[in-house]
Amino acid sequence: MALAMGCAELNAFLRRAFLQIADQVRVDSADEGQLVARLAVDDQHLRPGGTVSGPAMFALADVGIYLAILSRIGEVPLAVTTNASIDFMRKPEAGRDLLAECRILKLGRVLAVGDALIRSDGMRDPVARCSMTYSIPPRDR
Amino acid sequence: MALAMGCAELNAFLRRAFLQIADQVRVDSADEGQLVARLAVDDQHLRPGGTVSGPAMFALADVGIYLAILSRIGEVPLAVTTNASIDFMRKPEAGRDLLAECRILKLGRVLAVGDALIRSDGMRDPVARCSMTYSIPPRDR
Amino acid sequence: MALAMGCAELNAFLRRAFLQIADQVRVDSADEGQLVARLAVDDQHLRPGGTVSGPAMFALADVGIYLAILSRIGEVPLAVTTNASIDFMRKPEAGRDLLAECRILKLGRVLAVGDALIRSDGMRDPVARCSMTYSIPPRDR
Amino acid sequence: MALAMGCAELNAFLRRAFLQIADQVRVDSADEGQLVARLAVDDQHLRPGGTVSGPAMFALADVGIYLAILSRIGEVPLAVTTNASIDFMRKPEAGRDLLAECRILKLGRVLAVGDALIRSDGMRDPVARCSMTYSIPPRDR
Repeated sequence: MALAMGCAELNAFLRRAFLQIADQVRVDSADEGQLVARLAVDDQHLRPGGTVSGPAMFALADVGIYLAILSRIGEVPLAVTTNASIDFMRKPEAGRDLLAECRILKLGRVLAVGDALIRSDGMRDPVARCSMTYSIPPRDR
Repeated sequence: MALAMGCAELNAFLRRAFLQIADQVRVDSADEGQLVARLAVDDQHLRPGGTVSGPAMFALADVGIYLAILSRIGEVPLAVTTNASIDFMRKPEAGRDLLAECRILKLGRVLAVGDALIRSDGMRDPVARCSMTYSIPPRDR
Repeated sequence: MALAMGCAELNAFLRRAFLQIADQVRVDSADEGQLVARLAVDDQHLRPGGTVSGPAMFALADVGIYLAILSRIGEVPLAVTTNASIDFMRKPEAGRDLLAECRILKLGRVLAVGDALIRSDGMRDPVARCSMTYSIPPRDR
Repeated sequence: MALAMGCAELNAFLRRAFLQIADQVRVDSADEGQLVARLAVDDQHLRPGGTVSGPAMFALADVGIYLAILSRIGEVPLAVTTNASIDFMRKPEAGRDLLAECRILKLGRVLAVGDALIRSDGMRDPVARCSMTYSIPPRDR
């Protein structure tokens, strides 16, 4: 199955539709099995002690899984997140970007489900795990 | 049971320990049963269409439930969020603050659990529901 | 708003449609704000140490919130659970039934969301907290 | 890293410690990366329409991830599930066993986190996704 949107198209969409985070998040790679989204960590994401904040990790997973859906079905700007579950498991490494490895588990008529593992760039153990559900508007196939 | 920290003390702690969101979030009220945290919605929280972003609602619930724990046991700056589950149920009303009604369901030796209902100020139907778990460091009672 | 199905009708539906658990679960009360479902705890629900098993508590919350939806909209036998999040917070008391206090937070066109607090009968502190989402088939209003 | 308990030991533990489900669940394989647990589906797990019930899938994931933890650290009979999040994504195929592919994402001093993908035996698309947290008692390393 060819992707409906590739890496460059997804990054262009990100810059156009998500102005507020477009300079912080970008898609590193996208294929049928997985999309990798990168958060360029800077001071605005940090909590006391140098930890990346929970909401920043949530935002990374949310955007990454959403883009993974678009890579399959093309632009559906009205999709909304309906549920998220996240486990924060380790403290991110200071001074490293965060990478979210996102996969789509279900792409149904009205609901899509995906999950993500978030790691500090270059590290093996995951920092967080997240699963998300999106309600997607009716569309032509 | 008297609260370990009241509304004014919690707001002072917020300004001291959470610089990045201290001008956006404040505690409206706190008693034994419930803490109400307010997000002063402005442009930085909005997504296209005027909706408050999911990460902003996540941040409000996270801070609110955390402060509800502190209201019971006093300052424990090393508590960390280990799990969050959130349902986004309705679109927030444009131009209204968000209020999170937070309650503590368990306050154990190593884990605390709370949940929150988030509403647009003045509206009845909840916008989001969130439950969170925190790992809390050993402490004297 | 009058309920579409009251306590007696819900219990009759339970006996008719959920044969396998109809002798274990029953509705104690149902009004606009809350439905209380009771699990008559017996040996089949117990784990070593006398604890009620997680799946038994999951089943109680699932049936209770589902019946709370039916109390509002009438029989919709094709509704399916799409997401569940549960926190197990305390050990249930041995020899006591479990009560799930269920409320509906959203009743939309395609998704319904509810949550439940589970307590050992007569005890104050909750044993578990659960939130669930159901996909409901199109219907006439 | 050698496993603390292999497939045969885990199945022996299952028969000894989980009498109620020992004839329904067994470990098909266990290595460092993944444990596969099988639910031998029979009538007691079915809902009207031939679907395996949500609680039965919950129980499979719960036991599977718990055994994956034991495969790493040996018998810790007092570990308890503290949180579970589950997405039900597709209807299981009638007449097929369910397989849960379980992995451990964190194995900390007091908390362990794992997740599972559940498939009907022989099918590609997952039926459910589940993540679970366990509180584990202090132990020697």
